[in-house]
Amino acid sequence: MVIMGIDPGYAIVGYGVVSALSGKYRPMEYGAITTQAGEVFEDRLVSIYDSVCAVLAHNRPDAVSIEKLYFTNNKTTAIGVAEARGVILLAVRKAGVPVFEYTPLQVKQAVTGYGQAKKPQVMEMTRKLLCLTKLPKPDDTADALAMAICHGQAAGSPLRRAMLSGGVR
Amino acid sequence: MVIMGIDPGYAIVGYGVVSALSGKYRPMEYGAITTQAGEVFEDRLVSIYDSVCAVLAHNRPDAVSIEKLYFTNNKTTAIGVAEARGVILLAVRKAGVPVFEYTPLQVKQAVTGYGQAKKPQVMEMTRKLLCLTKLPKPDDTADALAMAICHGQAAGSPLRRAMLSGGVR
Repeated sequence: MVIMGIDPGYAIVGYGVVSALSGKYRPMEYGAITTQAGEVFEDRLVSIYDSVCAVLAHNRPDAVSIEKLYFTNNKTTAIGVAEARGVILLAVRKAGVPVFEYTPLQVKQAVTGYGQAKKPQVMEMTRKLLCLTKLPKPDDTADALAMAICHGQAAGSPLRRAMLSGGVR
Repeated sequence: MVIMGIDPGYAIVGYGVVSALSGKYRPMEYGAITTQAGEVFEDRLVSIYDSVCAVLAHNRPDAVSIEKLYFTNNKTTAIGVAEARGVILLAVRKAGVPVFEYTPLQVKQAVTGYGQAKKPQVMEMTRKLLCLTKLPKPDDTADALAMAICHGQAAGSPLRRAMLSGGVR
């Protein structure tokens, strides 16, 4: 199974595509789509949409794993992030790829087996699972790789497999 | 000048296309794009995107006028509305149409000449300016028509004309 993890934003969209087989992960392509602060906002959305479409077309993932968005304290950026997330979801759906959403707690739990894990622990486990000598920068890319692994772990669990195949409602 | 006003949302997107000439307005096409609560959210975004693209292609507006989004008290729906607004902005920009944002206060001011006007006054003035016997339902459609008129009034002012032509920075 090929999974694309996405960390949404309008200045930086982190993405990480991994192949998952029997609990083993291999990184395929990862990076960050960046847009400039001086650009017209709608043009930033167009850049994000086109770039996400290109990564999807190149890697043809079976699933996209993306962070569930909550209202944060940062009200100034939250609307822009949600608008960017909308065009990302559109690109994914237009490519016919199913979307799975996870909370930060679910990512910690899935990657480290421990919901109270600290960020450095999640990052170190992500690095180990992907057999990388060091995690890529920016953090958005590393976070996207952790998102992808999260779905791999969740999709690999017996309950989840049954749910995905329609066996559990 | 042809102006398309849009009232963004994910359950209902109101739209109203009007032609504006020397302060006179004529409705061209108006209505509401609706999506169903039971649908997968990404499919709702696809429906909205495709429908907005169709209205743009049919009417070829010179400008789109859309409400500036703020954080409201309704946190449950705000993220979904912003995600839908993102795909609307994408559709407009992909069609090469410039976007203009206005606050509710600016709409009141532009349509009635009075920033403290109540909603029924704004609606009645919108109806009169468009020479309609009654305003269309749902309210989202009527709001979108008011948004379109707002841009017509703003674009028609001498200062705004200078700004749009690059004469004022």
